[in-house]
Amino acid sequence: MTYDIAGRLASLRDEMRRAGVGAVVMPRTDAHLSEYISDHWHIVRYFSSFTGSAGLLVVTLDEACLWVDSRYFLQGAKQTEGTEIKLMKEGLPDTPTYTDWLLSVMAAGSTVGVNGLLLSVADTRTLSERLAAKGIKLDVTFDPVDAVWTDRPPLPTDPVFIHDLKYAGESATAKIARILKAAAEQGAEAYFTSALDEIAWLLNIRSNDVPCNPVATSFLYIAPQGSTLWIDDAKLTPEVRDALKEAGVATAPYGQVSADLAKLPQEVKVLLDGAKASGAIAGALEGHYVIGTSPVAIPKAVKNAVQIEGIRAAHLRDGVAMVRSLIEIERRVEAGEPLTEMGVADILLAERKKGDLFFDLSFETIAGYGANGAIVHYTADEASDTKVEKGSLLLIDSGANYLDGTTDITRTIAVGTPGADMRHDFTLVMKGHIAIATAIFPEGTRGAQLDAMARINLWKEGKSYLHGTGHGVGHFLNVHEGPQSIRLNDTLAALTPGMLTSNEPGVYLEGRYGIRCENLVLTIPAMTTEFGNFYAFETITLCPFDRALFDTSIMSAEEIGWVNAYHATVFERLSPRLTPEETEWLRRATAPLA
Amino acid sequence: MTYDIAGRLASLRDEMRRAGVGAVVMPRTDAHLSEYISDHWHIVRYFSSFTGSAGLLVVTLDEACLWVDSRYFLQGAKQTEGTEIKLMKEGLPDTPTYTDWLLSVMAAGSTVGVNGLLLSVADTRTLSERLAAKGIKLDVTFDPVDAVWTDRPPLPTDPVFIHDLKYAGESATAKIARILKAAAEQGAEAYFTSALDEIAWLLNIRSNDVPCNPVATSFLYIAPQGSTLWIDDAKLTPEVRDALKEAGVATAPYGQVSADLAKLPQEVKVLLDGAKASGAIAGALEGHYVIGTSPVAIPKAVKNAVQIEGIRAAHLRDGVAMVRSLIEIERRVEAGEPLTEMGVADILLAERKKGDLFFDLSFETIAGYGANGAIVHYTADEASDTKVEKGSLLLIDSGANYLDGTTDITRTIAVGTPGADMRHDFTLVMKGHIAIATAIFPEGTRGAQLDAMARINLWKEGKSYLHGTGHGVGHFLNVHEGPQSIRLNDTLAALTPGMLTSNEPGVYLEGRYGIRCENLVLTIPAMTTEFGNFYAFETITLCPFDRALFDTSIMSAEEIGWVNAYHATVFERLSPRLTPEETEWLRRATAPLA
Repeated sequence: MTYDIAGRLASLRDEMRRAGVGAVVMPRTDAHLSEYISDHWHIVRYFSSFTGSAGLLVVTLDEACLWVDSRYFLQGAKQTEGTEIKLMKEGLPDTPTYTDWLLSVMAAGSTVGVNGLLLSVADTRTLSERLAAKGIKLDVTFDPVDAVWTDRPPLPTDPVFIHDLKYAGESATAKIARILKAAAEQGAEAYFTSALDEIAWLLNIRSNDVPCNPVATSFLYIAPQGSTLWIDDAKLTPEVRDALKEAGVATAPYGQVSADLAKLPQEVKVLLDGAKASGAIAGALEGHYVIGTSPVAIPKAVKNAVQIEGIRAAHLRDGVAMVRSLIEIERRVEAGEPLTEMGVADILLAERKKGDLFFDLSFETIAGYGANGAIVHYTADEASDTKVEKGSLLLIDSGANYLDGTTDITRTIAVGTPGADMRHDFTLVMKGHIAIATAIFPEGTRGAQLDAMARINLWKEGKSYLHGTGHGVGHFLNVHEGPQSIRLNDTLAALTPGMLTSNEPGVYLEGRYGIRCENLVLTIPAMTTEFGNFYAFETITLCPFDRALFDTSIMSAEEIGWVNAYHATVFERLSPRLTPEETEWLRRATAPLA
Repeated sequence: MTYDIAGRLASLRDEMRRAGVGAVVMPRTDAHLSEYISDHWHIVRYFSSFTGSAGLLVVTLDEACLWVDSRYFLQGAKQTEGTEIKLMKEGLPDTPTYTDWLLSVMAAGSTVGVNGLLLSVADTRTLSERLAAKGIKLDVTFDPVDAVWTDRPPLPTDPVFIHDLKYAGESATAKIARILKAAAEQGAEAYFTSALDEIAWLLNIRSNDVPCNPVATSFLYIAPQGSTLWIDDAKLTPEVRDALKEAGVATAPYGQVSADLAKLPQEVKVLLDGAKASGAIAGALEGHYVIGTSPVAIPKAVKNAVQIEGIRAAHLRDGVAMVRSLIEIERRVEAGEPLTEMGVADILLAERKKGDLFFDLSFETIAGYGANGAIVHYTADEASDTKVEKGSLLLIDSGANYLDGTTDITRTIAVGTPGADMRHDFTLVMKGHIAIATAIFPEGTRGAQLDAMARINLWKEGKSYLHGTGHGVGHFLNVHEGPQSIRLNDTLAALTPGMLTSNEPGVYLEGRYGIRCENLVLTIPAMTTEFGNFYAFETITLCPFDRALFDTSIMSAEEIGWVNAYHATVFERLSPRLTPEETEWLRRATAPLA
């Protein structure tokens, strides 16, 4: 899509001149520091055309620069092409951080503006201190967006609904008590959170405010004396009101959060997560907040027995939808019927919608054919939509939110007969996938310690992938959640039984094809020995990998055995839910590797 | 050895009462925060009998507690048996930190004493703040040791000598210029270091002050206006004086360091390494020090071409000494001649002494037979010395300092015919060793990312080892040096070409046997692809592993191939330096695995 970026930046600069602001910082997030955001908050997209899920735009009176991470190097360049915006590739040795860049271009005495709700306490503090050292002021109340973006979408007004106890497995009352106990261990009696998934989990409420994230736009304060949810009144039904009251949660208007927080007595110590609370919120609690880590993160990540049962059931339904989609894609290609990447996404959505308890997709489907598959986090649009035809690989990363669980699966399939290079690279990726799937590790192990095992076979051939190997997955909630992950940089969160994490190594050859193989894995106890407790992963996702892409000549007997055992499980679990024809297809698709 | 611990603690408590100090903190280090220390600084050993290389003793008027890490759980318990000292096992969930423990036993208004030279700036600050929060005072000048320890050994007076440029490869003048440039990048114009290995490296000086560490007890300040070395005048020869003068380094009496630093002008910003500079030094520079990271750490760790040539040459000589020692050990056992662990250490020392450029051992030899091998960092003494006889494993960890390089090697050998359990466990350890030896990884990779690859085969059987997989190794200097390592906890130091690191996985079965397999590896460039630069390890150590201990049924063809190729290299490099009989032995010892 082509927007009038030049005109929008010109209007923005008019506002900046009017306010005496020399540079404005616009992080790609919302007032809840979310990764996925509602249309109201797509400020970076509005001013730059960039649609990625992370980034930061800085506009001065003469320049505009967009910082993106490695996932978005290609996409960012493509989407800002033809604009004045300069792409800043984060993590490369020659790329300054946005703060360093600001320090290099802004003069002493000038002012940098930011909406204080969009920057974490920690980032606000660092930015403010570093700018101050050069005599530059940080104005955390500068918000020119409404003035420029005249047709800005309003905040979402979808109704809130209760996530039933039969799916959630623990009442809001019990959760609040548990979290307040954890907050007390960090020296606070109350906890404030802006994180929409934390609020949804804590109160067992859901809504539809952010595409693919079933959250309700709100702020939450919990305390032994009583809790408050700041939320648009129009979103509340009588049933939800009753449930909140039962959990000891009063409601207040969304826009009043800062003013209400500022009225809290100074003697109440309020815990804030330094990474997830904004500078504006900390400002309202000045003098009586405690910066710590979220007491919700681990309890939310460690799924209870009811949730795990639901997750297994959701993955059965999702596996059926995946198999039916793969059959349909194969049929269309073989029949020579027209099929594009967007058509693939449509097939997947249609099949998933047929499943019980389906709510929505858990993220926009990525279907990338050939060279498009090499663009990590690519989503086809009218302009890029490419025909799926014999000769290359099709990478499909998709998932759904069901009331009983969230799915996230990537399969890479050969369209037509794959080349030896494709089979070789696919098998390297699968060797990494299997290394994670079969890992056993002592209590206390973090994902960062396992990450290289997914990469070493690629590394030995000078190949790599720049994204993490795994992320936490919510329960009928955000498909990306912390605190655990499997990635190069350590999050210090131990992989604990009950955590659901993705296992998704890949490799991306620019201009040729992309490969990613993703299942979700549940951390489970493995054994206890004189050396302590050991944990393992149980693979939860049920869908075959493309047998045509394995090169067994570079696989060990154990690796081949894992694929065959996984495929046998997939067949055993899914076939009772399929038609005889579908079962025949699955039997072939899960036959042992030669 | 049995010391009169009760009497010594009683005298210490007399001094504490006299000074009004309720608790004294005694870290097992010296005024340079060294790991290896001279006899003068063996304060923890004096008061507790504990001889480990790390630990911290806290004595109150009623209690005495010794904190040790997992390496020393067994040894610490053994050595403090029969004393009032309570062993505090660091890292276990129920063990408080010494600070938490102090906070739990000391009353508000009381005083905790410590010698401020023995605690890092960072630790001093944390301890002082945490005690202050409970109204407890920290006296950083409390040093009762001389009063109690009447026959305390004096500071070492061995002469300093120059480490010749033909071994060091870079002049002191060039190094000082390089380090000052790096200090400037951290916003300081001068750098102060107490770290003895940093001083030795920077000035190309060595001495014999600490057993196995060829360092000179001193403090160093470098600045563009001129540098100062605080050192005992008696240690300086005319040659060394001249060399220092040439590098722009003046000398001053050792004991005067704090007083001299306090006289530096406030406008000179002095860089300190927060972990390696003591609270006492920071105190003397109050108001104009900058806490950062050592600018010496990486330049010292990345060896230059002259050093690498020396390291290779030293490992040839060390390999010959190792092979001759293994032959002699085998001969004695087979001949039924008496041999104990201390006898093994004697054989190794005698063989190494015959090598050119030998200076000293690089650490006290660890020779542990049977159950003693399961005590990590065990050193045999008169009381523990055990007969080496057929029926178990002998673990030998040893190394030397040669003028051209430092070695560190561990071999585990079967004495008699090994059991299937021993062969199985040895092979699991070797699989980890080979995984590290053959790893290829992208630029920027830290050792913590690779560590689990050395452990995964053990983990899969519920086994583990609690020490790191690898540590940096100095050049004719300390056998343990940073900043890189291969361990569970991330040091954030990338493995860079030129770094020398140990590769030493192991497994320890309490009461049965210990296994460790250690070579040194040099990081080298491997390839450059569209994904960037990739590095690999070149194994530098030359000595066969015991063929009798491999269970090839659990090894891959690649793993067997690595052992055979390594053994072929060992034979090719060492055999020209051996007698015909020794060559025959080595031919058998390096024959391909079946």
